[in-house]
Amino acid sequence: MSTNLSIIGTSITKFGELWEKSLVELMTEAVTEAVRDAGVDPEDIEAIFVANKAAGSFENQLHLNALASQLFPHFPPAVHIEAACASGGAALLAAEHALLAGQYKTVLVVGAEKMTDVSAEETTEILASAADATRQFGSTFPALYALVADMYLRKHALTSEVLATIAVKNHRHALKNSKAQFRKELSLEQVMQSAIIAPPLRVFDCSPISDGAAAVVLTTQPHKAKARVAGAGQGQDAMVLADRRSLTTFRATSTAAKQAYQRAGMKPADIQCAEVHDCFTIAELLAIADLGFFPEEEAGRATLQNQTTLGGKIIINPSGGLKACGHPVGATGVKQVAYLAELVSRGEADRVLAHNVGGAGGTAVVHILEKAL
Amino acid sequence: MSTNLSIIGTSITKFGELWEKSLVELMTEAVTEAVRDAGVDPEDIEAIFVANKAAGSFENQLHLNALASQLFPHFPPAVHIEAACASGGAALLAAEHALLAGQYKTVLVVGAEKMTDVSAEETTEILASAADATRQFGSTFPALYALVADMYLRKHALTSEVLATIAVKNHRHALKNSKAQFRKELSLEQVMQSAIIAPPLRVFDCSPISDGAAAVVLTTQPHKAKARVAGAGQGQDAMVLADRRSLTTFRATSTAAKQAYQRAGMKPADIQCAEVHDCFTIAELLAIADLGFFPEEEAGRATLQNQTTLGGKIIINPSGGLKACGHPVGATGVKQVAYLAELVSRGEADRVLAHNVGGAGGTAVVHILEKAL
Repeated sequence: MSTNLSIIGTSITKFGELWEKSLVELMTEAVTEAVRDAGVDPEDIEAIFVANKAAGSFENQLHLNALASQLFPHFPPAVHIEAACASGGAALLAAEHALLAGQYKTVLVVGAEKMTDVSAEETTEILASAADATRQFGSTFPALYALVADMYLRKHALTSEVLATIAVKNHRHALKNSKAQFRKELSLEQVMQSAIIAPPLRVFDCSPISDGAAAVVLTTQPHKAKARVAGAGQGQDAMVLADRRSLTTFRATSTAAKQAYQRAGMKPADIQCAEVHDCFTIAELLAIADLGFFPEEEAGRATLQNQTTLGGKIIINPSGGLKACGHPVGATGVKQVAYLAELVSRGEADRVLAHNVGGAGGTAVVHILEKAL
Repeated sequence: MSTNLSIIGTSITKFGELWEKSLVELMTEAVTEAVRDAGVDPEDIEAIFVANKAAGSFENQLHLNALASQLFPHFPPAVHIEAACASGGAALLAAEHALLAGQYKTVLVVGAEKMTDVSAEETTEILASAADATRQFGSTFPALYALVADMYLRKHALTSEVLATIAVKNHRHALKNSKAQFRKELSLEQVMQSAIIAPPLRVFDCSPISDGAAAVVLTTQPHKAKARVAGAGQGQDAMVLADRRSLTTFRATSTAAKQAYQRAGMKPADIQCAEVHDCFTIAELLAIADLGFFPEEEAGRATLQNQTTLGGKIIINPSGGLKACGHPVGATGVKQVAYLAELVSRGEADRVLAHNVGGAGGTAVVHILEKAL
C-alpha cells in the first residue's frame, strides 16, 4: 500500500430507523455531503465504489452503481462491491487499488443500507444470506455468535458481565456521536437483565437493525487531507464455524491486521483508537485480541478494567461501534473510516484502525489511518 | 491500462438449465478448471474477484467472496462485484486495477449465476432490480428493450426481419460452441412467427434464463499467455430511458469503447471479432454501431447483408452470444472474455473485443484483447 492515499472528504448520515428516507435518498445525502466536505468539484470524482450488502433483497434494487453514477452530471464509472457486512471495507480496498493503479486520481466510496422496510424476521433471514448453508438449520448470526460467546466465556472463565461491560461502554461512547442510533446510557443491570436472544447473548449484546449511509472521498493528488491511508489488509476464513481451527479467534481478522500493520510500518501499540466490528458484544472481545491490542487471555480483564475507553490503553469504538452507533451493514465499513478520519483531522488521535467483518469472520478488512503529512 | 496483463487460464461451464447443479457447484467447477488450465499452483492465486448479479435474491446467498475463497487451501482475499448484467466486465476491471496497483501478481475472476431455481416470473422480477423505480409500472427489461427496438426500427425504416436475422446468425454460430445453451439452427420464419413477448420483440429475440459459470486467470508475471488485455473501459448513463438523449444509441457503450480503444491504441477497424451484449436482438444492432463497427444508419443493412458473420466485415458473437450461448447474468462478461481469449490462443483472431452491458445501458464495460507477445 502506497503512502499517497488521502481522505479529503467524509460524511455520515444519521443512523437509525429512518422510515422517511429511501436507500437512494440516503446514498444521495452521503454522496452530496462528502463531495461538499472535500471541497472538490463534482466533476473531479472520476469513479464511484458503492458498498451495500443486500439491497437486492431488502429493496429489490441492484445496479446501485448506475444509481450512484447518475447523481453526477458526468456519469463517472461506478461499481458495487459486496462482502457481506465487510462490504464497506472491501469497497475502500477496491477504490484504493484503482487509485494506486493510476486509473483515477480522485474517487468516492459510498456505503449505504436500508434495512427497516422489511420485518425483523425477514431482516434476520436476509442477513443470514451471508452465512453458509447451515442457516437452514437455524444458524442465524445471533446463533453463530452465541456459540462463539459461549465457548469464549467458558475457555476464559468469564461471565456475561464482560459482554455487558462492552455494551455499556459503547452506549456511553455514542452519547458524544450525534449520528448514533442509540444515544442513551445503559446500566450493567439493564443489559444483564435484558431479554435473551441466543444464550449467552441478550438483546443489548446485539447491534440494531439500521438505515444509514456514509461516504469518503479519496485522492492521490495534493489536497488538504483529513487523514492518510497508511495501510490496509484483507483476510478470509472458512464460512462454517465447524471448519475453523478455533472459535475464540477470527483468523480473517489476524490475517488482515498483519498485512495492514506491515504495510503501514506500524505495530498494535502504535494505535490510539480503533473502530472494531462489534456486531455482537462478543465480537469486540475477539477483535481486540485478534488485532493485537491485548493477548486473548487478557482481553476480558482489560475490558472489565476499563482499558478500552478514555483513560485506558486504547479507545475501542469511540463512535459507539455497531452496537450503539448502529449497523446499516453496507455502510458500516465506510462509516468507521469516515468517523476515524474526522478524529484524526480534529487532532484527537494520530494513528487509528478500522476493523470490518463479514459474516461470522469469513471476511475481514482492516484499515490504518494516520495524520496527514 | 498497462500492456503487461495476460490471460493465462480460462474455463466456461456448460450453459443451460442445469437443474442438478448449485451455484457453488458451478463456481467450483469454473474455478477448478481455470486454475488447471492456467497451469499454476492453486496457492499462486493471490486474490479472487467474483461476478454475480443476484444470488442474494435467486438463492438467498450472499458473501460469495467467502464461498470462493474457501475453495482454496490458503483462503486468498476475495470480493464480490455487481454491476447488474455487466458484473462480469466490472469484476475483470477490478481485478485488473488490483494487478496494476501491484497488490497481486496473479488473480482469478469467476462469474456465476444460478437462475433456474425460481419461476420465470420471479426471474423477470429479480432481473428488473437492475432497472429504475419505473419497473413498478411494468418496465421490465423486455418492455424497455421493446421501446428501444420500436424506436430503432421506425427511425431506420427497418422491419423486424433485421432482428430475426441476428437471432438466426447467433443460433448458427452456437452450433460450433459445445458450451452453448441452444445448439439448434433456427429459420427466419421460425423467429418471425414465434410468440410476441413485448412488440416488436418475440420470444426468439430474447436471450434465455440460464445457469452457468466462467473464470479467467490473469497475471502480470511472465507465463505462457492465451491473450493479452490490450485495453478496457467503462461507461455509464441515466437508468431511466426517458432521461436519455437518444434511445437508439447507448452512451455507456460508446464511452467505454472510446476508453478501451484509446488505451489499446486501436480503432474499431482493427477488431476482427467481438462478443457483444445481445440480451435482446435489438441490443446487438445498437452495439455494433456504438462500438464503431458500422455507422448507426448502416448497422441494419450490414446485418441483413451478412456483414457480421464469417465472410463479412467482422464476426459478431462467435460464441452464439447471450442469445444462443445463454445468459447466466453474472457469468456473461467473464464468459465473453474467456471465449475470446481461447479464439486468440487458437490463432483464430488477433484482436478481439468484449462488450458487457448492465440494465438497459446504464452501465457498459468493454475489453479489448490481443495476441500475446
